[in-house]
Formats: sequence, C-alpha cells, structure tokens
Amino acid sequence: MEFGICFKGFVTPQRARYLVRQAEAGGFSYCWFYDSHILWRDCYAPIAMCMEHTEHMRFGPCVTNPSVRDWSVAASTFASLALQSKGRFDIGLGRGDSSMRVMGKKPANLARVAEFTHKVKAMARGEKVQYEECPEPVQFPWSAGYDLPVWIAAYGPKALATAGEHGDGVILQVGEPSLVKWLADQCYAAGDAAGKDMSDFRVMSAAPAYFGSREKCIEATKWFPAMVGNHVADIVEKYGSNSDLVPASLTDYIDNRRGYDYKKHGQSDNPYLDFITPEIVESFCVLGSPEQHIEKVKQLEAAGTTQFNIYLDSGEEEIIIARYADEVIPAVNG
Amino acid sequence: MEFGICFKGFVTPQRARYLVRQAEAGGFSYCWFYDSHILWRDCYAPIAMCMEHTEHMRFGPCVTNPSVRDWSVAASTFASLALQSKGRFDIGLGRGDSSMRVMGKKPANLARVAEFTHKVKAMARGEKVQYEECPEPVQFPWSAGYDLPVWIAAYGPKALATAGEHGDGVILQVGEPSLVKWLADQCYAAGDAAGKDMSDFRVMSAAPAYFGSREKCIEATKWFPAMVGNHVADIVEKYGSNSDLVPASLTDYIDNRRGYDYKKHGQSDNPYLDFITPEIVESFCVLGSPEQHIEKVKQLEAAGTTQFNIYLDSGEEEIIIARYADEVIPAVNG
Amino acid sequence: MEFGICFKGFVTPQRARYLVRQAEAGGFSYCWFYDSHILWRDCYAPIAMCMEHTEHMRFGPCVTNPSVRDWSVAASTFASLALQSKGRFDIGLGRGDSSMRVMGKKPANLARVAEFTHKVKAMARGEKVQYEECPEPVQFPWSAGYDLPVWIAAYGPKALATAGEHGDGVILQVGEPSLVKWLADQCYAAGDAAGKDMSDFRVMSAAPAYFGSREKCIEATKWFPAMVGNHVADIVEKYGSNSDLVPASLTDYIDNRRGYDYKKHGQSDNPYLDFITPEIVESFCVLGSPEQHIEKVKQLEAAGTTQFNIYLDSGEEEIIIARYADEVIPAVNG
Amino acid sequence: MEFGICFKGFVTPQRARYLVRQAEAGGFSYCWFYDSHILWRDCYAPIAMCMEHTEHMRFGPCVTNPSVRDWSVAASTFASLALQSKGRFDIGLGRGDSSMRVMGKKPANLARVAEFTHKVKAMARGEKVQYEECPEPVQFPWSAGYDLPVWIAAYGPKALATAGEHGDGVILQVGEPSLVKWLADQCYAAGDAAGKDMSDFRVMSAAPAYFGSREKCIEATKWFPAMVGNHVADIVEKYGSNSDLVPASLTDYIDNRRGYDYKKHGQSDNPYLDFITPEIVESFCVLGSPEQHIEKVKQLEAAGTTQFNIYLDSGEEEIIIARYADEVIPAVNG
Repeated sequence: MEFGICFKGFVTPQRARYLVRQAEAGGFSYCWFYDSHILWRDCYAPIAMCMEHTEHMRFGPCVTNPSVRDWSVAASTFASLALQSKGRFDIGLGRGDSSMRVMGKKPANLARVAEFTHKVKAMARGEKVQYEECPEPVQFPWSAGYDLPVWIAAYGPKALATAGEHGDGVILQVGEPSLVKWLADQCYAAGDAAGKDMSDFRVMSAAPAYFGSREKCIEATKWFPAMVGNHVADIVEKYGSNSDLVPASLTDYIDNRRGYDYKKHGQSDNPYLDFITPEIVESFCVLGSPEQHIEKVKQLEAAGTTQFNIYLDSGEEEIIIARYADEVIPAVNG
Repeated sequence: MEFGICFKGFVTPQRARYLVRQAEAGGFSYCWFYDSHILWRDCYAPIAMCMEHTEHMRFGPCVTNPSVRDWSVAASTFASLALQSKGRFDIGLGRGDSSMRVMGKKPANLARVAEFTHKVKAMARGEKVQYEECPEPVQFPWSAGYDLPVWIAAYGPKALATAGEHGDGVILQVGEPSLVKWLADQCYAAGDAAGKDMSDFRVMSAAPAYFGSREKCIEATKWFPAMVGNHVADIVEKYGSNSDLVPASLTDYIDNRRGYDYKKHGQSDNPYLDFITPEIVESFCVLGSPEQHIEKVKQLEAAGTTQFNIYLDSGEEEIIIARYADEVIPAVNG
Repeated sequence: MEFGICFKGFVTPQRARYLVRQAEAGGFSYCWFYDSHILWRDCYAPIAMCMEHTEHMRFGPCVTNPSVRDWSVAASTFASLALQSKGRFDIGLGRGDSSMRVMGKKPANLARVAEFTHKVKAMARGEKVQYEECPEPVQFPWSAGYDLPVWIAAYGPKALATAGEHGDGVILQVGEPSLVKWLADQCYAAGDAAGKDMSDFRVMSAAPAYFGSREKCIEATKWFPAMVGNHVADIVEKYGSNSDLVPASLTDYIDNRRGYDYKKHGQSDNPYLDFITPEIVESFCVLGSPEQHIEKVKQLEAAGTTQFNIYLDSGEEEIIIARYADEVIPAVNG
Repeated sequence: MEFGICFKGFVTPQRARYLVRQAEAGGFSYCWFYDSHILWRDCYAPIAMCMEHTEHMRFGPCVTNPSVRDWSVAASTFASLALQSKGRFDIGLGRGDSSMRVMGKKPANLARVAEFTHKVKAMARGEKVQYEECPEPVQFPWSAGYDLPVWIAAYGPKALATAGEHGDGVILQVGEPSLVKWLADQCYAAGDAAGKDMSDFRVMSAAPAYFGSREKCIEATKWFPAMVGNHVADIVEKYGSNSDLVPASLTDYIDNRRGYDYKKHGQSDNPYLDFITPEIVESFCVLGSPEQHIEKVKQLEAAGTTQFNIYLDSGEEEIIIARYADEVIPAVNG
C-alpha cells in the first residue's frame, strides 16, 4: 500500500522542508497540499519548494477545482511542476467547496469536473485544446508530453461515478474501511459500466492519524469529521438519510449538524464541532497505539484502499511520521 | 546599481538551478521570469524552485498582469512565495499583452493595472479586501503582513504616469540611455504632481546583453526590438510619430513593421524581424566587448537607471553572467 | 541555554539530512558527531553534508583527539569546514580513548591535548606554526583567519584543569546537575588560577534524553553510563574512590565493572552493562515525561550548564527532537 | 569519452556549489579536487559539500597519497563519502609530492602506493585489514561493502607499471596525445604481463583547457607545464633524457629548469616559469577555439584516453565549462 501525507497549509516552510524529507526516508511516497488559496495560502509555491528537498516523492493538490483558475493557467502550473520535478506531480480534483464558498461563489458541477479532467490532461500532454472561457485554442509549445494523473474526490453517488468514469483514482475523505469499500465499489461499477479498464484504478483513503490515549486523539482530530460533515450533509440531503443509497454509518452524525462557517473550515477551533461524537471521530480517523494503527490500516487495505493519506496539521507531525516510518509502514508492507 | 537577470522560460530547470546561484555569487540581486503561461510555462513554479537555491536574490514575474488570474489567487501566490523566501519577492506588472492576446483576449486597461496594484498589495499585507469579481471580501488569515513591491511596465505617457503614481518602480524595456531618461522623467513628473514621495522610486532598464563581434551580437539579440516593437507601435499609433510626445529614436524603426504573431513573441526565429535595423538592435541592447558593456551600463546609470535587468535566453547565459560578475559589475559598482 | 544534538554515527545520511533541519527549526543551535573513524565512520564528511542543509547551526566533532591525524591535516579539515559554512565549526577535543584504543594504541596525554589546542587554533587563524611531527613550519595561504572554538572533554581533576586553562569550554559527559557543578567548578578554579578571563567559558552537559516510561527510558539509554564508565573508572583508579577528590555519586557504580571491549563502545547491545543500576542511568541521563525533562534541564542550567547536548542514537530521534522543540526548549528558554 | 573537471582549491565554496551543477548539467561526469591540505585546504570537506548539489557526478581527490593520513583514517573518509553519495566516490593516488614536500617530508615509494591501494580498497569493502602502522587489525562495522575505484598517477616507467598492475586506471597529467599513448601503453603492458584483465582499465588525461587567442591561452595555462615539470625532471634524471625510455617531447623543456619551490606549486604566479616555451604549453594543454578543442580531444580519445579531466583554476571556469557543454562534448560524444 502507498502512504501519503497531506498538509492543510498551517505548516511553516521551515518545517515543510524537513517533514517531506523525513516522510520520504520513512516510506511515504506522496505529499499532498490543500488547494484553498484564501484559507491556507497558495499551495503550488510550497509544492515547488518541497520538490527541491525530495527525490522520489510525488506531490499534488488535494484537492484543486475547475473554477478558481483559468484552465490554461492551471494546466500550465501543473505541467511546469511536472517538468521541474521530472514527472512527480498528480492532482486531486473536487468541486471547490471551501475554495469557492469562502469567496461567496458556488462550487462547480460534476460535468465541469469531468471536462476539466480531460482538458487539463490534454493541455499537459501538449495537445491543442479549446475550452469554454478561451476564444482561441491553447497549446503549450514547451510541453514535454506529460501524462497527468487525476484523482477525483467524491462522496455522493454521482461524484463517485464521475471519479470511476473519468479519473485515474478516487479520493475518499474517510478512514472507515466499510465506508471506503462501499464508496469505492460505486466507482468501479461506474467505470466498468462505461467500459473503462479499471485494473489500475486507485483508491485513496484520506484521514488524520494520531497516537496516544483515546481522549488525546479525539481532541486532536475531531476537526476532521466536522470538516467533511458538510459533504456528508450534502449527500444525505440529496439522497435521503433513510434510503438504501447511503449507509447509516455515514449519516448518523449529521442529524444535529447546523450552519457551517467556511472561515473555520478544517480548523481545530471550529465551533461547529458539538455534533461530533467520539465514536464518529474514531470511525473516521486512525487513532491510538501503533498496533491499533497497523490493524486499521490493514483493514483499509483489505477494503480496497491503495493509498492511505494522512491528514496532518493536528499537531505532532514529526512524531506521527516517525511512528509510521518505524512501526506502521513496515508492519503493513512487510 | 542593482543588476538582474530575466528568464523568458526557455531555460531548463536543471540550468536554472545553477544559473541563479552563479548570478547571486556574481553580484546580481534580482532574477525575473516572464509571466506568460502559454508561451513559456507558468513562472511561479520555477521561481519557488530557484528560491531554494539562493539566499539573498529577489524574484518576481516580469511581468504579470491583472487579467489572467483571479486577484485573490494571484495575491495568494505572491504572499506564499514571499513567506517561503523570507520576503524575497517583488512583482513586475503590465497590461498582459502577450499573455492575453495569445488567448484571443484583450489586455487590461491602465485603471485596472492601478487597482490591481493596490488590491494585491493590500491582500499581501493581510487586509480585508473587496474586489470586483469577488462577491465576498477576502482576507488571508495566514498573512505575515508582507509589503509587496510592485514595478509597473510602461512605454506610453499614460502608462508611465500610472507607474509614477501607483508603482514602487517602473520597468522600461529598453537599453538606450536617452530613452530611459525621457521615459523615467515622465514617471517622476506624474508622481510629483500626485504629491507622492518619489525619493525611493526605482527605474529598471531591461534589455539583452551579449558579448562578441557586432554581427554575432546583433544576430543573437534582434528578437528583442522585434518583441517590444508592438509596444512602441501602440504608442506611435496613439500619440503620433511626429508629435513632440514621442522621440524620433523610439519610433523610427516602426514604419516598416507589419502584423505581429504573438505565437512567435520573444523568439529568435520570429519572422517579423525584417524591419529591425542593426542600429536599432545596438541602441536597444547592450552589446560588444566588456569595455563597451561597462560604458553603456554607466550611461544607463547616469540616465537614472537603478537596476539593469539582463534579458537572457539569447544563448551563452553562463558566459554573460560570468563576464558581468568578473568585469562589468565590479567596474560599475567599484 | 544552548541546546545541541550529538550523533554517534549510526544515523544514515538520509536521516541526518532532515534531522539537522528539524533540530535547527526547533531551537537547537549545535550538532555534534562522535569522531571515532573505525567504530562509526569518519565524521567530517557528514558534518560537511549537514552544513549544506542548515543555515545557522554549528557543527563539530565530540570529540576528536590529537593523535589520530597529523595536526596540519586536522587543522586543514577544521578550517576548510569553517570556510564553507561561514564560520559554523567548533571542535570538541579529548585524549582519544575509543579512537586510539580500538587501534591498539594509547590515548594522548593532557599536555599534548593542550598543545594541540593552541597549534590547531593558530593554524586555523593562518599563523605560521611549527609542531613536533613536521620538519617544516606550516602555514595555510588560504586561511580566512578563523578563530576556532575548542571545547575540551574532561572528567578527572587534571583534565578539568586543562579545559579551564586552555579551552573555550568544557565537555562534561554527564547529565547529573551536582556532578556538572562539581566538575565545572574545577575548570573555573584552574582558569582563574592561571589568570585567564573565564567570563565566556562554556560548560556542556552531554547525555542522552529519552521520553516514556521509566523502564523504556532506562532500557534505551543504559549504554551511556556503560560507555562513560571507563572514564569514571580511570578517575577512580587514579584519585581513589574514597578520597575527597571524587564524589561518591560518580564512583558508586564502578565497583562491579569489569573488562571493557571498545568494539562495543557506545552500543546498546554492549554486554558490559550488567553493573549499571537503574538509579545510575536515571542520574546520568535526562528521562521521563516532558515535565521531568524541563525540570532536570533547568537544574542543569542552575548548575552552570551553558549547553545541554543530547546524545542521540538511542532510537526515536525525531520524537526526542520534536518534544524538545515543542515543549522543553520553550519552557526552559521562555 | 568521459569528461571531468578538477579544482586546485582556489575556488570559493560559493562558486563550487554551482560549478559542479553546471558541469553535471553540461555532460561532465567527474569532479576532482587536488588533495594537498596545506597549499589548497582539505579537499574532502568541499567534496562532501559538492555531493549535496549533484545527483550523478562522481568525486575524488586527484591525487591523494599514502603518507599524510593514517590508512584507516583515509579509508574511513573514503567509505564515509561513498556512503553518503550512494557510491559516487573514487580516488586518484600518487606518491604525495606536493603534499609531503611542503611539510619537509619525502613522498612515498611505489611499493607503498601499491600496498595502500589494496589495503584501503579492502577496508572500504569491510574486510578485516592489518597494516603497518596499526598494532591491531582494523574493520569497519558500518561498511556497506563499497568497491573503491583507485586511479594511480604516473609518469615514470615504474609508476606506470604500478598503475597497470594495481590500479583501476591511470592518471596522466598531460594533454599531448602521443605522450598519452606512449604512457598508457606501458600500463597495459605491465598489467598484461601480470596476467590482469585490462579490458576495463581507464586512462585519464588531465590538463588545463582554455579558450581564446594563443597568447591569452598560453598566459593563462603556463603554470601547468611548470607544475608537472618536476615530475618530468624526476623521470629524465632517473631514466636519462637521451635514452629510448623517454620520448624527446617529454624532456625537451626540462633542460633550463631550475630549483622549484613547492609553495608556488600550481600557481600562475609561479616564478619558475621561464623555462616553459609556448610550444610546450600548447602541447601539454588544450587551447584555442572550440574547433581546436574538439580536434585535440578527439586525438586524445584516439590515443586511448577514456576521460579528459580539465584542470580548472586558470580563470574563466564558467566559460570553459559552458563551451565544453555546448560545443565540445556534443561534438566528441555525438
């Protein structure tokens, strides 16, 4: 199984420079950054910086969106980063919830996510591409023919189908094995139905990991179910909390959820945390002793996860990476 | 006098990594990159990369524009680069000629250039900012209060006034001392008239430098007067080639100029080069022996230039930087 | 108080590159390497390597000796490292116990330690120097006039006097505050008696630090009292375990000590560990919870320690550095 | 053919950091440093530094000797550098002329050179090794089993035989093709006679390269025949300038040579240069226009040279490396 780390953007440049090196030495092969330019600063500058301090690690936004940048500007950034890292760049892609909503704008719809996927991949490959906002077709004369992997973030049935049909992989923001399986299966079904070869399709489970006592772990990571709660709420609202389409485990914690302020998105002092129960935090994250981590990560792998991506920025980043390097990754990958 | 280098984007990452270090060791204090994401790839990724290989050198686009990126996206990139380089980031700013025209779009007007200047400076400082395209006011919670220097590129009277009134400096794409003086004077006049303190105002003369025989130098750098010819043509068209507003030396070479294809912008195989005479190339660039460089750079300094910014990508970059480091910079700066 | 880390040499280059950056970011200002070229590989290559990954951190051997290298070779290495790090190089100096004994040779005497101190300092400064083994006087034409700080390692009364009279500081390989005070006082007394200005004299307490339960900490660090036991045994043998010259706390644990194999020097699988009691380990190291570390480090500071240098290579290096960065250093230095 | 650069030690660390990167990007695969710790500072610190700024380039002293360092100290340094560069370390080895003579000591004899070769190779591989100065056998417990390539520098018949019989390659400090062939043939003959497989034997021609007019080139590089003149004088004295053993071209310039001061060794202000004729400089170095360089390097290759190693420190290093990267290496290697 692949292991990744994911920075929200709170990390200082001084720490990021060695954390990526520590992670690379410890067996992590991916480093992701939130792409939400107002809440957590532009992520492509730190990605380019971190590339200079690593040799094999791959980087990407987790997740970018089709709305906040002109598509040729986005594709140029992606292909430029791939060029200077000798091809160590992927993207995670979503609808742009936090990025757009904090600007008072609406996220993109899924058709636009799919079209962005194909258009930026084509631009990165060096093809001549016409896209909606641009009167003239665009072609990068400097393209090195890069084949950009695109992972699509999804929770709801239609997004999962989009990921399966159009993506190289899916990003599932949850660390609960049964949910991972239920969600990933929908991607495979949609891809198969579309006649796509799904043999290399990749499934990321992205969630915080934390070590220590139950209380300490829950306190440090409860921001996560709060942050993704809005996505779950969207699904519940759309597909019905009592329908067969959505499992009870995903929706139980939504009932008490109230208005959500995106200015507090993904922060541990998020005031909208009271509806989160300890059980939900434990279910959504990977917590406890090294042995508990090993067991849950193995369950995630059995559920079809190909990459476990640890959301950092809960504190103790050096320690979490070190424990995975010393204990968890060797135990999982043998 | 400050010395800078400017990359068009043809440079490979492998070379850029050592050229910036060579330039820094040799007495250059600025490194600029063209910001034209389709013709020469995104420049912020290589800027971030180069920052990791230097200690004191400052970086920036030369030039960006107010149209191709959402303003909060642009400001987030700028402030993110400033943060991870400990404040070594400026911007050059223009109307977006090449960047926008190659997409079939129109450059921004000067009012928009001025507004962009103030709004991105405010966002970089961490202020709450409202701008046209964004329904909600924007504020970067992670801002470190960076004061972003903005250099405005100008040729025509109104652009020069905008630079003087709103910029921290002006970018003059020409290496002819008398033109530099004539252009810079218009900035100072406008700034003074607006009651602005112009004592720290900075004047960049940006042009290719090349060593060797007259023939070799002219062949290598004639792309430059061709590239900037369109700007001069705009001025001549607007202010009249026979008026007192524009000196004959700036307009003489425009007469035979015909349609210009932005896909060949700034390239030495630009087919629209036939109207360029050897005298124009010599006038616009800094060419010849080290002694000739020293003399012309001293004339530029006497004309009010505070930074001589060498446009590279004419070939022999290592050699040009080495000769400036060994001979020209010591002779000029004593 | 200054904080340092010290590598025995087990660390891989891949880890050393980020551990020094982590330590620098976390408030450590020194990184030392054992100089024992057979047991743990040459230390100057990794020092030079680590310098490239840090900006302010100082480096040095802890400790080198006057016998294993020709003095001009040693001084050339020291001055070369100072030159390329912009002056970030000190040396720790001892008699060469492990380094020489593993080769079947004898450590240097203290007069030779003192003479080496003055001769290598003079060579690093660029002076013409005559020393015993060299028929011709030696002078480095490339010297930048570096003033090399020399810390002298000492346990016994004569070594402590040598450190006080000739060194810029003393290295005390023990984390017990009362012993630090008793040992350092002897340096100050000797320096004062020799009329030397002792106001800038520096006192390093070097010992392992480890976090966790008492059992885990003792298991991980008991190699340390074993390693330094031979030094203590030397003192006890020379000055008498019942004399007033040596406090009981330093000698109690020597009684059962038997033959020591230098091939196992400083290793946790050292078989000569059975004479070490848990109380001795606790006394010589800094162990337990962050609060216990803070308390003991404050006691060391009160006892006159100017630098607490953590002997790593007990495992969990990333975690130890992180806990010092996050909890101990801020609590001690305010 | 392989290309190398060789630093005498005048280069500043700031320049060395980018020159190695420039050379690596330009097609050079080796970087050598003089090992003469008094004249030009210790070379292993800058080698370790430069390794951090390159990925594939190999490094080594050109040349070290068996006398100035204890053999286990030397082998530990070599194996430590190999370890942290992932195996990018060779050594050049000679008798220690400049290094020893400047200390008032005598160079080693050839039997000692051969024994050093085998003993340090064995120590680097991790074998238990007994050598003269060390009472106890030495074994590096940390060895990664590195197979250290040893190139032996030679001029005279016995040294050439030693290189052929014991070395992985020979270092010939001369850029004259017919001399290279005459010298290398002696290595092959000796190796064949000893029954050694010579199919991978490597031949380095090491000499300055310089571009420009004949006068400028000769002025910049005449230090080189002066520096190696002492070696040639040794041969002539030993084997007779009129014997068949030594070709006239190697000895003609020795006749007027007088006393040589090693304090001026390898320096362009060496006062012992008057016996050097322009023809000798042209013969020993590679000078002139790019076309002249290409032609002579091809002749060197035809004469059996497997690596042309450019002695730098004649000035214009950036320019020499750039011209080889742009013109000479592509023309030679196709």
